[in-house]
Amino acid sequence: MTLIVQKYGGTSVGSIDKIRAVAKRVGDAREAGHEVIVVLSAMAGETDRLQDLGSSISARPAPEEMDVLLAAGEQASIALLAMALKDLGHPSRSYLAHQVGIRTDADHQRARIEQIDTSALRESLAAGVTPVVAGFQGIEGSSGRLTTLGRGGSDTTAVAVAAAVEAHECQICTDVDGVYTADPRIVADARRLDHVTFEEMFELASLGSKVLHPRSVEFAGKYAVPLRVLSSFAAGGGTLITVESESMEQPIVSGIAHARDEAKITMSGVPDVPGVASKILGPVGRAPIEVDMIVQNTGADGLTDFTFTVKRGDYARTLELVQPVCSELGARSVSGDDQIAKVSVVGVGMRSHAGVAMRVFDTLAAENINIQMISTSEIKISVVVAERYMELAVRALHAAFELDDPKD
Amino acid sequence: MTLIVQKYGGTSVGSIDKIRAVAKRVGDAREAGHEVIVVLSAMAGETDRLQDLGSSISARPAPEEMDVLLAAGEQASIALLAMALKDLGHPSRSYLAHQVGIRTDADHQRARIEQIDTSALRESLAAGVTPVVAGFQGIEGSSGRLTTLGRGGSDTTAVAVAAAVEAHECQICTDVDGVYTADPRIVADARRLDHVTFEEMFELASLGSKVLHPRSVEFAGKYAVPLRVLSSFAAGGGTLITVESESMEQPIVSGIAHARDEAKITMSGVPDVPGVASKILGPVGRAPIEVDMIVQNTGADGLTDFTFTVKRGDYARTLELVQPVCSELGARSVSGDDQIAKVSVVGVGMRSHAGVAMRVFDTLAAENINIQMISTSEIKISVVVAERYMELAVRALHAAFELDDPKD
Repeated sequence: MTLIVQKYGGTSVGSIDKIRAVAKRVGDAREAGHEVIVVLSAMAGETDRLQDLGSSISARPAPEEMDVLLAAGEQASIALLAMALKDLGHPSRSYLAHQVGIRTDADHQRARIEQIDTSALRESLAAGVTPVVAGFQGIEGSSGRLTTLGRGGSDTTAVAVAAAVEAHECQICTDVDGVYTADPRIVADARRLDHVTFEEMFELASLGSKVLHPRSVEFAGKYAVPLRVLSSFAAGGGTLITVESESMEQPIVSGIAHARDEAKITMSGVPDVPGVASKILGPVGRAPIEVDMIVQNTGADGLTDFTFTVKRGDYARTLELVQPVCSELGARSVSGDDQIAKVSVVGVGMRSHAGVAMRVFDTLAAENINIQMISTSEIKISVVVAERYMELAVRALHAAFELDDPKD
Repeated sequence: MTLIVQKYGGTSVGSIDKIRAVAKRVGDAREAGHEVIVVLSAMAGETDRLQDLGSSISARPAPEEMDVLLAAGEQASIALLAMALKDLGHPSRSYLAHQVGIRTDADHQRARIEQIDTSALRESLAAGVTPVVAGFQGIEGSSGRLTTLGRGGSDTTAVAVAAAVEAHECQICTDVDGVYTADPRIVADARRLDHVTFEEMFELASLGSKVLHPRSVEFAGKYAVPLRVLSSFAAGGGTLITVESESMEQPIVSGIAHARDEAKITMSGVPDVPGVASKILGPVGRAPIEVDMIVQNTGADGLTDFTFTVKRGDYARTLELVQPVCSELGARSVSGDDQIAKVSVVGVGMRSHAGVAMRVFDTLAAENINIQMISTSEIKISVVVAERYMELAVRALHAAFELDDPKD
């Protein structure tokens, strides 16, 4: 008998019929001889509805009360699934965060799980009762207040529970049937990967494939929880996310990720003295606005151009914050562009293969796509291009690295 | 500085604007120098919405999961009010049942409060932070499961909290501005009572004035919590519900209550032997269907007619349950009527005044209203009449006892 954790997202429990279908899937796993712990999100739309109530009552709703408000969504879905499981003849019980001791820090609305007390879950499993755990929520130790883990946090709950109970596998059941070499809506012959490494998954998730909450991937890597992304309702083994092993033959490139809705801001003619980066980005970071890529180039004249990217929604505010710093530093000007996108080539195989970057540049040049920014890490190469070229760039790179050809 | 508990019902927190208005009222009480503990119901309609979800997923939803589902409603409203109070500059914090240790028995969907740990509430008050407590919900001690107190249970939460913290007064803020001598929609000159006794209130609440949850009135009487029913938003002192005192001059009759949607079932020609009542009502009580009035009359022939009333919604099922008992007992027949109503004359002054019953019968006779059943207690006389006469009966009795004339 193996113990698996199954997490179902909001779309998978978005209606009474879908909750019944999830109960059927969980029941099938039980009947196949598995022990199952289920982790659920709120019904699709419910978190938005609650968020809207909070935003209607207050321009700046108190974050610790926002957590109480939002956590009500998962409370409803776990009760409904436990009912449906019982109707199918499978003993079941819902568990809220405080009932399974999902302890977090006190950083409301984006809390981090610190500890899970597994005794209640183990007792439940030992009694043959399938636990249905509320995702997304936690409890702060000293005050006993509710916390939430941020959007997509149920993934993290599932992985943390799987790590705590040492589950055989953590299955993220969703409306896609795995991780693809690129977004199938953009690349017709994008292919489902049978496995990717945690590092690749982390890059693919944070760069826009949006399959998994980045923190959950980080967590799974840290605790070596075998993580599988698969469809809630369709058959198929999905994509297994594994720790990289020496023996594993890795493709050079695993996938092409993209992120729309980006914007860049450039401060030109900045005197090249120490502390410039922190002066420019300080007010932005404190806002807090998340900065993604940062590129700095110093010319021969001792002046530097400093460029960084933010989410498009933060563009106007970022410009406002940066403008005063420009005069303060005696820089020439601030400019920006909110019609850009980021395209990333991801693969752990890059570590041992040279020439990937050149192939990226050559491919884009052949399509006459101008590269505005470049940023590289060990396992990815990201470029910023005008948004209108994004889809072309993804398709061209997918073809250049022969990702439609199943090798893995 | 006096400590008051204010309970607001679902209609009073039914919209964002109303929640803001409640925050204003609570803030006013704070500024007037009171310490306040707020107890809230779910936003109007929310409990129904959740109940419908539960009923959609299962024909017999597991009661302990139904409690988890329903309790989500209050979780949202307390968070929203705490946000609104903070926006008005009043420090506030929401409390769920488990956070203030509202311990109940394990009777899901109609649990009884056994104990409240006041330490969190006292700490909050001492820190100048107004606690906003989720009504209706509790926690079962041994399992740690959520429970609910049944419809209207937030009243009971408020009274129990008031008793536990020894509040100066428990204010039930609602959409009516007090307890009336009769339903003002039926009797135009019905008058608001400045005070009623707990016993009268209990009869008035359970007989259809629907101002207060009967169990809350029982609780308030037991722990001598001064209870006031008043409007959430309009000015006015409402109705104070007091313990009867020797010195108090009591009117003979305080009010006329009524209950529509009743049904009666009669088993005729029952052999008059011991155990008949329990044989007839046993299956009904186990259903469980709540039986209200019970009347039995034995004729000279050694046969008896046995009549009892139930809610109209339970009528068909009750008939089905009673039919087999009829043959078993060798009784003549079972008949029934689901177009009846109950009208009750209530007043603690009846105890020391004879002749009230005669005046009731005379009044109804003068209007040609046939009395189908009579039941009396120390402080009330209830009669069952055809439903179409109910309003006429209430008006006639209101006039006969001169309730439009302010004496109290």
